[in-house]
Amino acid sequence: MSNTIQGIPASSGIAIAKAYRLENPELTVEKKTIDNAQAEVERFEKAVETSKNELEKIKEHAHRELGADKAEIFSAHLLVLSDPELLNPIKDRIKSDSVNAEVALDETAGMFINMFEQMDNEYMKERAADIRDVTKRVLAHLLGVGVSNPSLISEEVIIIAEDLTPSDTAQLNRQYVKAFTTDIGGRTSHSAIMARSMEIPAVVGTKNVTETIQNDTMVIVDGLDGVVIVDPTDDEIATYTEKQKKHEEQKKEWAKLVNEKSLSSDGQEVELAANIGTPKDVKGVLANGGEGVGLYRTEFLYMGRTELPTEEEQFKAYKEVLESMEGKPVVVRTLDIGGDKELPYLNLPKEMNPFLGFRAIRLCLEEQDIFRTQLRALLRASTYGNLKIMFLMIATLAEFREAKAILEEEKAALVKNGTEVNENIELGIMVEIPSTAVLADIFAKEVDFFSIGTNDLIQYTMAADRMNEQVSYLYQPYNPAILRLIDNVIQAAHKNGKWAGMCGEMAGDPIAIPILLGLGLDEFSMSATSILPARTQLRGISKEEAASYREEILSMGTAEEVVEFVKEKFMK
Amino acid sequence: MSNTIQGIPASSGIAIAKAYRLENPELTVEKKTIDNAQAEVERFEKAVETSKNELEKIKEHAHRELGADKAEIFSAHLLVLSDPELLNPIKDRIKSDSVNAEVALDETAGMFINMFEQMDNEYMKERAADIRDVTKRVLAHLLGVGVSNPSLISEEVIIIAEDLTPSDTAQLNRQYVKAFTTDIGGRTSHSAIMARSMEIPAVVGTKNVTETIQNDTMVIVDGLDGVVIVDPTDDEIATYTEKQKKHEEQKKEWAKLVNEKSLSSDGQEVELAANIGTPKDVKGVLANGGEGVGLYRTEFLYMGRTELPTEEEQFKAYKEVLESMEGKPVVVRTLDIGGDKELPYLNLPKEMNPFLGFRAIRLCLEEQDIFRTQLRALLRASTYGNLKIMFLMIATLAEFREAKAILEEEKAALVKNGTEVNENIELGIMVEIPSTAVLADIFAKEVDFFSIGTNDLIQYTMAADRMNEQVSYLYQPYNPAILRLIDNVIQAAHKNGKWAGMCGEMAGDPIAIPILLGLGLDEFSMSATSILPARTQLRGISKEEAASYREEILSMGTAEEVVEFVKEKFMK
Repeated sequence: MSNTIQGIPASSGIAIAKAYRLENPELTVEKKTIDNAQAEVERFEKAVETSKNELEKIKEHAHRELGADKAEIFSAHLLVLSDPELLNPIKDRIKSDSVNAEVALDETAGMFINMFEQMDNEYMKERAADIRDVTKRVLAHLLGVGVSNPSLISEEVIIIAEDLTPSDTAQLNRQYVKAFTTDIGGRTSHSAIMARSMEIPAVVGTKNVTETIQNDTMVIVDGLDGVVIVDPTDDEIATYTEKQKKHEEQKKEWAKLVNEKSLSSDGQEVELAANIGTPKDVKGVLANGGEGVGLYRTEFLYMGRTELPTEEEQFKAYKEVLESMEGKPVVVRTLDIGGDKELPYLNLPKEMNPFLGFRAIRLCLEEQDIFRTQLRALLRASTYGNLKIMFLMIATLAEFREAKAILEEEKAALVKNGTEVNENIELGIMVEIPSTAVLADIFAKEVDFFSIGTNDLIQYTMAADRMNEQVSYLYQPYNPAILRLIDNVIQAAHKNGKWAGMCGEMAGDPIAIPILLGLGLDEFSMSATSILPARTQLRGISKEEAASYREEILSMGTAEEVVEFVKEKFMK
Repeated sequence: MSNTIQGIPASSGIAIAKAYRLENPELTVEKKTIDNAQAEVERFEKAVETSKNELEKIKEHAHRELGADKAEIFSAHLLVLSDPELLNPIKDRIKSDSVNAEVALDETAGMFINMFEQMDNEYMKERAADIRDVTKRVLAHLLGVGVSNPSLISEEVIIIAEDLTPSDTAQLNRQYVKAFTTDIGGRTSHSAIMARSMEIPAVVGTKNVTETIQNDTMVIVDGLDGVVIVDPTDDEIATYTEKQKKHEEQKKEWAKLVNEKSLSSDGQEVELAANIGTPKDVKGVLANGGEGVGLYRTEFLYMGRTELPTEEEQFKAYKEVLESMEGKPVVVRTLDIGGDKELPYLNLPKEMNPFLGFRAIRLCLEEQDIFRTQLRALLRASTYGNLKIMFLMIATLAEFREAKAILEEEKAALVKNGTEVNENIELGIMVEIPSTAVLADIFAKEVDFFSIGTNDLIQYTMAADRMNEQVSYLYQPYNPAILRLIDNVIQAAHKNGKWAGMCGEMAGDPIAIPILLGLGLDEFSMSATSILPARTQLRGISKEEAASYREEILSMGTAEEVVEFVKEKFMK
């Protein structure tokens, strides 16, 4: 008998493969007295060697697949395993107290971890994390338990996990990882976004896949309907193979539109763009017919490192994106750090409500060196393509004016030094704070464009943390309050001859698309893989009809009414 | 030479008195070998006795001044000091190891504290806090250092503190404490609200009063202008005595309006009401000419206890407030717990962003027993006065409808059982979430009234935690986006024949009052001590003139412009 688990569809497609559980090994250490200390030291050294070899392979893989930045994590791990200040005390302990290697390692490493953690220095705390990671690996080898090394997977699997961290996903190989499914998370959680960017099916928020699914069990992941089938029957495999085939055919249909314009059924054109995180993502944007990059999240350049990226490193990344997009528009969002996005090398304070805290433009205006370095890199790269710069987390006009003045200063300084800079860079803001959406008519006089960031706009407007499961019912993209704010932003832009885009998850959502088209949205920026389905959907919607429902939709009271109405009008 | 420190004016008035530093004593313990163990045990017992006597006095004082609830904290402390399971091991340790009492106490108590803290049980964790508090007190007596016992102050002083906690303020005696000033906090911090409720001057957020001011130094606190003068010259004392006299005279002028209506210069009437936390606060409301209670924060009934209040306890509190207000309107806000307001006896999850989390109505709709008990108590009390019920943190129409349905169920059940219930209780919502402010026209069809909660509305609309100093510049009551949302709520209410009030700090703010009057606000609910100044101010403003500026103000771009405009038009 198969078992069906319902979750949240996070990335479309269907996969059928055996399960690979990504888990933390059980590492209970028992104290033992040993007879032969020398043999025990050798056993320890062997575990260290095995761990080193593993880490070398992972590092190489990460370097090849994910770039030098990500590989650095593993260089740090390797350094720990060559550090005599850690290794010698462990061996001494084995010899002097005749204890087993597990205990010597666990206690000695524990002491170092404690020491580093108690230092008031983020760099040393990071070192503690490295030692903890490496200790786990060596301990697992000593105990003979397996460590999950997703980077070493070399056969087709479906990953089963409680959740996937950025460092987990950094190790996944698209060739072998066919899908994944997790206990927690929603459509906007890290794992979901990664799945769409890797173009593999995913079902998240299942609550219990890790409880239910054993290693090597056959699993079907249906990312279209959010269903996971454990141990499927032959009939089910046949059904889903058929569904998979149909989906592949549909993808081929979609692919025919790759070089077509994005038109409504009555011939109104919009722009379908993609959200990206690194220059590597551009390939997927072009392959999926993206007409631009609507959101380039630059913070990935700053993460997984031990120091800030230099102006030169940033310049190269921006130039690469601009050049590969071949003159198509690229909206670069300035740095979003602080809040939940911590950088260990910046000593940021712990906050009680990081989502309402010192982050993004708030931090950039205070730590101007970081901000100015990024702006210089952008300005220098501006001659290599169609760059648009976007500030984020703007809550007041004063913030926008200050950020703009800093940009102008850096531009003037570069020009004075003879550096060539594009004179016509459009400068816009992300609209994600309610105050800015409410005052859009005022902002529209001073900005060149708006891009509505729905993930945060919804969270703040509903006062509900989108990562908190207990209030996730309040994350309502179709709530009429959200639609009114979106409408206000679009109207304000158009009255002032500016354009309005959207770069939140909502822009690629089939229920939202007819509404947004009707409200007059100019640019829809989404996961690259959503572009062709969206282009297909648009061809079936009359913009005039969609626009005629504007007032009716905006005077509804609940999200449910809105969804019902859209389904009734556009999806029958 | 005197020294002037600028801070934030948090409660008006002027005080001149000597400084009393409220601080944590320095309790460094040094290990000593003692010769006479019996004498050391006796020294320990004496310190325990002294501590007990102190605690008895504090408890008595708290009971008299603050009610039985608050006094309970000190009963718990006294219990700890009579517990042989704690005291005997300490004495044993002194005898068996010949160590000094300080070390025996510190280490033994430390062990208990650790043990209790590690238990996964909030009640036991509270016990750990009690032991910690009591240990500090006994240790201070052993070391011969003073403990701050603000409840025992018996001469006129000005309290100097980093910040004041609820348990500190629980101990203050209004007769002797003439003012206070703190390093941290803003106008809406706990200390600021307490100062206004105690009607004593306060200057908060000075950054360095505790660094600068020694015990017994003469200090002037000017709560009108937010200035603290340390070691004032004779001239300064004379000047401020004069200013104090003028302020007292002004207060007498204000007092003449205590039984007058709240009228604008052109004869338009509004309601000036007060925010209260406990039945005791009603006296101050009436003494200050309050025309109603615009916000009764019921959560104080639930705090500082070990279990939920019974329906009967709640009924008594609500009845007391309704009766003492003698038929004047009393708006009772349903329970606001969760988020930063934790109750140890409810096992609420820790959240990453508590201000965007599972709290208030969200929690009430889930934990319906708690909610229904409160509603029953309110319904039963409704016949004793003019009760209005207000739900808070309403983000969607569905939440309001669900909460209302629960209220109706409880009402029907009571009526069926023959309990008398007022049939005409007005039912409203607090507007503090942007989505609700945006959809006010929809809500206005189903609620009886709105009360705008500006403290939270500003925080969510600007996406800035109002307790976080690093983003406090974004807490902007006069930001045009906030004013537009307020305007939207008032217009929606009036179009549907409903009334709109405000119960955030903004309602009593002299800069905001002309704007709010012009926008048509019907009810202003504030700290009781702000009512008479507000009534005085209103008599000088023409509502017609204020209303004529509406469009001009709502089309401004920044808070600075708004403030400048109001000062120009109304404060010259």
